[in-house]
Amino acid sequence: MNILTVGSVAYDEVITPFDRRERALGGSATFFSIAARHFAPVSLVAVVGNDFNLADEQLLEHKGVDLAGLEKVDGKCFFWKGEYLANWNDRITHDTQLNVFEHFKPKVPHTLRDSEVVFLGNIHPSLQLDVLNQVDKPKVVALDTMNLWIKETRADLIETLKHVDFLLINDSEAAMLSGQRQLIEAAKTIAEMGPKTLCIKQGEHGALLIRGEEIFMAPAYPKCTVVDPTGAGDSFAGGFIGYLAAQNDLSFDTLKKAVIYGSVMGSFTVESFSVDRLASITRDDIEARYREFVTYTHFEA
Amino acid sequence: MNILTVGSVAYDEVITPFDRRERALGGSATFFSIAARHFAPVSLVAVVGNDFNLADEQLLEHKGVDLAGLEKVDGKCFFWKGEYLANWNDRITHDTQLNVFEHFKPKVPHTLRDSEVVFLGNIHPSLQLDVLNQVDKPKVVALDTMNLWIKETRADLIETLKHVDFLLINDSEAAMLSGQRQLIEAAKTIAEMGPKTLCIKQGEHGALLIRGEEIFMAPAYPKCTVVDPTGAGDSFAGGFIGYLAAQNDLSFDTLKKAVIYGSVMGSFTVESFSVDRLASITRDDIEARYREFVTYTHFEA
Repeated sequence: MNILTVGSVAYDEVITPFDRRERALGGSATFFSIAARHFAPVSLVAVVGNDFNLADEQLLEHKGVDLAGLEKVDGKCFFWKGEYLANWNDRITHDTQLNVFEHFKPKVPHTLRDSEVVFLGNIHPSLQLDVLNQVDKPKVVALDTMNLWIKETRADLIETLKHVDFLLINDSEAAMLSGQRQLIEAAKTIAEMGPKTLCIKQGEHGALLIRGEEIFMAPAYPKCTVVDPTGAGDSFAGGFIGYLAAQNDLSFDTLKKAVIYGSVMGSFTVESFSVDRLASITRDDIEARYREFVTYTHFEA
Repeated sequence: MNILTVGSVAYDEVITPFDRRERALGGSATFFSIAARHFAPVSLVAVVGNDFNLADEQLLEHKGVDLAGLEKVDGKCFFWKGEYLANWNDRITHDTQLNVFEHFKPKVPHTLRDSEVVFLGNIHPSLQLDVLNQVDKPKVVALDTMNLWIKETRADLIETLKHVDFLLINDSEAAMLSGQRQLIEAAKTIAEMGPKTLCIKQGEHGALLIRGEEIFMAPAYPKCTVVDPTGAGDSFAGGFIGYLAAQNDLSFDTLKKAVIYGSVMGSFTVESFSVDRLASITRDDIEARYREFVTYTHFEA
């Protein structure tokens, strides 16, 4: 199945405890698309300014991401400057410049209105709904969001969630959205809002998948040397949704494998700044790491 | 194989975001022994004061824990008062009274000097070594420790670790002890200190087992409603070491199962204050939860 995604294409300035990088190609749609494209066709809806590097555009094209929905306008690309502290868990945002994203009205090209899988990257929920309304009858709708939208634009988010099958968020966001501390209870409450499948991203601790009574727990890859965690969650989403789209099957067994592929893609992303590692791996690298997950998690029943 | 353990038998005053309990039976040796006793014979070496309740002594006896090495002296039991904050991860210690533990010289009864498995609970490393020196030729030595001993009594700990096969600590302690942030690297450094097997307890995020090139990642039980996390790590150790002692086999496949049994025992402990839940479960309850772990973690290779 074809994937349509909306999200940000951005430049990041990232400071880690050991290194830093300026003008790193980033943004949720960038990481998602490159990760998902290893599995299935991906079309990207986003906006960039005239500071968008030709080399970065060519990278996305070379990776096979369809850029028909990438709008170019006067102004500068979305910019984020952040710093990871020594424990890697605490992240400080030094600067966020919406730039061309401030007046972004996503336009889904006509040829993409029959997309079967829609991934709504982490942007304002009313923009997410706007995109969804431009797609005819998608078979699968997945949405990523964050604490900011849950707090500041709750009504919009609740409206958008009515049309969503898969919700990808982290532990504290699941608790914030549902008012439930216990994640299984949180999933029940969220299912009533719309998304019947909840995928809880736990960063360096893996992911938890819940659909009704079905539960799956996936660990994170234990052998990473983290260089820059930026984009890990978006890459996880890319592996997860990309694999599902390729399989065209939503059985829980397939969902479990999809979560592992998500973890695999996240684990590659954190091994470098920007998409350096994610864009250089092959399908063989992905399969080899998948097999490592099997080795590191299976035990006698 | 018989297990000999040394550690604390204590009274705790515990405050959680939702409730509190005074004079809760606690201590590392208490949780460890009751958890391990579900699998193998356990003898406990510890000290209590004359405030030690007869009912608590009877509970341990009733659970089949051998108390030949439980010394009773004038004074009060070890006391800890702590509070878990709203996120459950941050714990404040309001009060620690060593009491009878201040002058504790562990004495291993003559009949227990041939114990085959020794679990050195989280106490001063020189007391741990003292116990070990009183056992003839144990087949398996496991040790639990914490940041306090790594920082304050590093030389003593390094000396004790030379005689240890299994080390159980958490992420940040592994980093502190080894000087290595990456856990696989930390395990290599720690293996050179003595313990060839490192079991990293990650609390609500499960556990990671590393022995040479062999790695196993176990998640935590996802369906817990946490009432009081106190003793979860000690109960994990009890399930882990208890299962190993019962199997009398140290293959990595057996170690993997042991980690899951450890996670099972920890998951029961957090469902109540003190040992209320841990002491009331049956072997059937344990096996049922083990099977849940299988269901929640296995995926197609």
